[in-house]
Amino acid sequence: MMNEDMKKPHVVVVGAGFGGIRAAQKLAKADSNINITVIDRNNYHLFQPLLYQVSTACLSIDDIAYPVRATFKKYNNANFRLATVENVDLENKKLVTDNGEVGYDYLLMAAGATTNFFGMKNLAKNALGMKTLEEAVQIRSHVLRQFELAAHETDPIKRKAMLTFVVVGGGPTGVEEAGALSELIYLVMAKEYHTLNFKEVRIVLVEATDKLLPMMPERLRDVTVETLIRKHVEVRLCVQVLGYDGKNLEIKGGEIIPTNTVIWAAGVRAESIADTMGCEQDRGGRVMVNEFLQVADHPEVFVIGDMAHFVQDGRPLATVAPVAMQQADVAAHNIVNSIREKELKEFKFKPVGNMATIGRNEAVVSMGSYKSSGFSAWMIWLVVHIWRLIDFRSKVVVFVKWMWDYLLYDRLVRIITR
Amino acid sequence: MMNEDMKKPHVVVVGAGFGGIRAAQKLAKADSNINITVIDRNNYHLFQPLLYQVSTACLSIDDIAYPVRATFKKYNNANFRLATVENVDLENKKLVTDNGEVGYDYLLMAAGATTNFFGMKNLAKNALGMKTLEEAVQIRSHVLRQFELAAHETDPIKRKAMLTFVVVGGGPTGVEEAGALSELIYLVMAKEYHTLNFKEVRIVLVEATDKLLPMMPERLRDVTVETLIRKHVEVRLCVQVLGYDGKNLEIKGGEIIPTNTVIWAAGVRAESIADTMGCEQDRGGRVMVNEFLQVADHPEVFVIGDMAHFVQDGRPLATVAPVAMQQADVAAHNIVNSIREKELKEFKFKPVGNMATIGRNEAVVSMGSYKSSGFSAWMIWLVVHIWRLIDFRSKVVVFVKWMWDYLLYDRLVRIITR
Repeated sequence: MMNEDMKKPHVVVVGAGFGGIRAAQKLAKADSNINITVIDRNNYHLFQPLLYQVSTACLSIDDIAYPVRATFKKYNNANFRLATVENVDLENKKLVTDNGEVGYDYLLMAAGATTNFFGMKNLAKNALGMKTLEEAVQIRSHVLRQFELAAHETDPIKRKAMLTFVVVGGGPTGVEEAGALSELIYLVMAKEYHTLNFKEVRIVLVEATDKLLPMMPERLRDVTVETLIRKHVEVRLCVQVLGYDGKNLEIKGGEIIPTNTVIWAAGVRAESIADTMGCEQDRGGRVMVNEFLQVADHPEVFVIGDMAHFVQDGRPLATVAPVAMQQADVAAHNIVNSIREKELKEFKFKPVGNMATIGRNEAVVSMGSYKSSGFSAWMIWLVVHIWRLIDFRSKVVVFVKWMWDYLLYDRLVRIITR
Repeated sequence: MMNEDMKKPHVVVVGAGFGGIRAAQKLAKADSNINITVIDRNNYHLFQPLLYQVSTACLSIDDIAYPVRATFKKYNNANFRLATVENVDLENKKLVTDNGEVGYDYLLMAAGATTNFFGMKNLAKNALGMKTLEEAVQIRSHVLRQFELAAHETDPIKRKAMLTFVVVGGGPTGVEEAGALSELIYLVMAKEYHTLNFKEVRIVLVEATDKLLPMMPERLRDVTVETLIRKHVEVRLCVQVLGYDGKNLEIKGGEIIPTNTVIWAAGVRAESIADTMGCEQDRGGRVMVNEFLQVADHPEVFVIGDMAHFVQDGRPLATVAPVAMQQADVAAHNIVNSIREKELKEFKFKPVGNMATIGRNEAVVSMGSYKSSGFSAWMIWLVVHIWRLIDFRSKVVVFVKWMWDYLLYDRLVRIITR
């Protein structure tokens, strides 16, 4: 048994995100003679598109986090290791982790991206990131705590800083966060903080370029801005953040916004493990891959998703889930064919469209020539996101929570944890 | 307005547990001319009877935690303050908190109980408590992590300590925790850790006296022990714990159990804030109250629930939710009547029965002359607990989760958080 196992090729998948989980499942299903090890520093797969709903008290963590082992339950050839990869040693075909060394025959890197503070240290220290479950829970507790503090604060200057919430970044995450914050505050909290004057609340969405949701057509971008303004979100375009010391947000040109809360959704870079591979990287730390998703000089090493820099039609692909999932299919196929010494497939991304939700009955959807906004777009967004949740239980539970919040203008996950 | 308000009597309720919330709602409803402030160090009401289900990955925190402010949404005369009470000053009728001082005309203390380690410092440091949401999440992460560590541990001695789980305390909490742990491990984890030998797992329930569930009749106590043994739980009665250094659990008589996990459900004492009141207390720190639930010499101060020592039929009442809730009704009534200068009501507890669940289809229920065990008792337990959940959304969500776990032998909240 042991000897047989040792002859089986060993594929290591780093990262249990959309790309990693999908590739591992494909590999496990394709050939029971391949041994697969998935490594992640968390024991769960995170459904990141709904992370902003955890941060705004709509959903709880287990609605969008699914145990990695549960996704492989039926495959005896797939294993999981809870570990943080510290170094990738391409020469000796092994990974160094905080939980021992792991050798491989084929390596699939799918460790994703992390928040990019572009070198601004005081921002990294004082702003709230939005990439992990812990960060989302931290935002939730922090925002709720500001209201509890403000309710008993008599100094109007301090109270104003408690009630000013700045979201930086005009991509889907920033837009969805600002919209959801507005509804949490004006539709839910306003009913319960009888002693607060909600005219003192300020929600600001700051974007460095001249547009929100740059991947959307112009008409939908305009709808997005209008909808946010109607929700009392100040939309500030062409505004560059210089730093944040925990009290004052500094903006290029001299403006200062006094605030206790800066949520940073303004950029990502590849997880730092990419830097240890010794491969060519772009400015965002992403590893350059060829048409088969391999790195240079190491045909046994594949990189996909937010970690990979793949050029199509002269431009690198965006760091979004559909790219990672389509790449997972091709990378799994190419690893199986490498083992069988067959021909590899070239990757080509087929666009599936973009969507973002701004709040109740409000979303923007762009799929090919189909563009939509308002209620119909919002229904499409709901159905797609419920559908993509990994299991039936989450689908039912999330549906119940969304219906409750929608009908009763409520958010019940308003729990401040330490 | 301000002057009018200042003439209104101010009732402060300390604690948002079963007793505090119920009393505050009764007071708010009884008279809109009474101002009520509820103080708690958490912003949520916790449904403690299901805390063990959070610790064993059945339910998530928001299924059993409900924002305090949401319970008073419709009462403008009720307010909430997120604060930890540090001192009760009965002479000057005020509370000192970490969030300012609060004066009162009437005070209702309902701050509940905390874990009692009976002065054993190394136990307090190394064992896992089971009274707060944070502690339950800590148990969940800790237990799941032991399996991830054991899956890659080659030293059999270390692996054995990782896979030994000791629950101390044979009351309902300890019994329910041990039963739920057994099912999590043998029915769920065993399907996913292909490389582990589950014969190495050991679950031990330790109790210092000679019986589990002392409030139950003998027949049901016997059923409880038999059911636990069938679930591979070692039941150890008349075993006294002396200490735990994080590696070895020391037992009176010299036995040592090497284990990474000791869950402490062996005793409670009143929250330490009771010690600052200067009133007579029992050995468990509970404050002595008279037949009207008042403390001596201060008719404006009432104490209820796990903080109160109330003697009925020659014995102090148990620290359980039904006592707290019935006392809340009488205390609220007596505060209103004190304000109106009317006669006070004497408290008398009406027993409502006892129940505990041991696992799938297994519970024990004792209500008056009705005794039941097995499936029928389990159904009663389920209905009662679903029914008592505070809102319709939790009822539906918990029902869906319980059905999912029951039908698929699954537990999806297996999320290790930091």
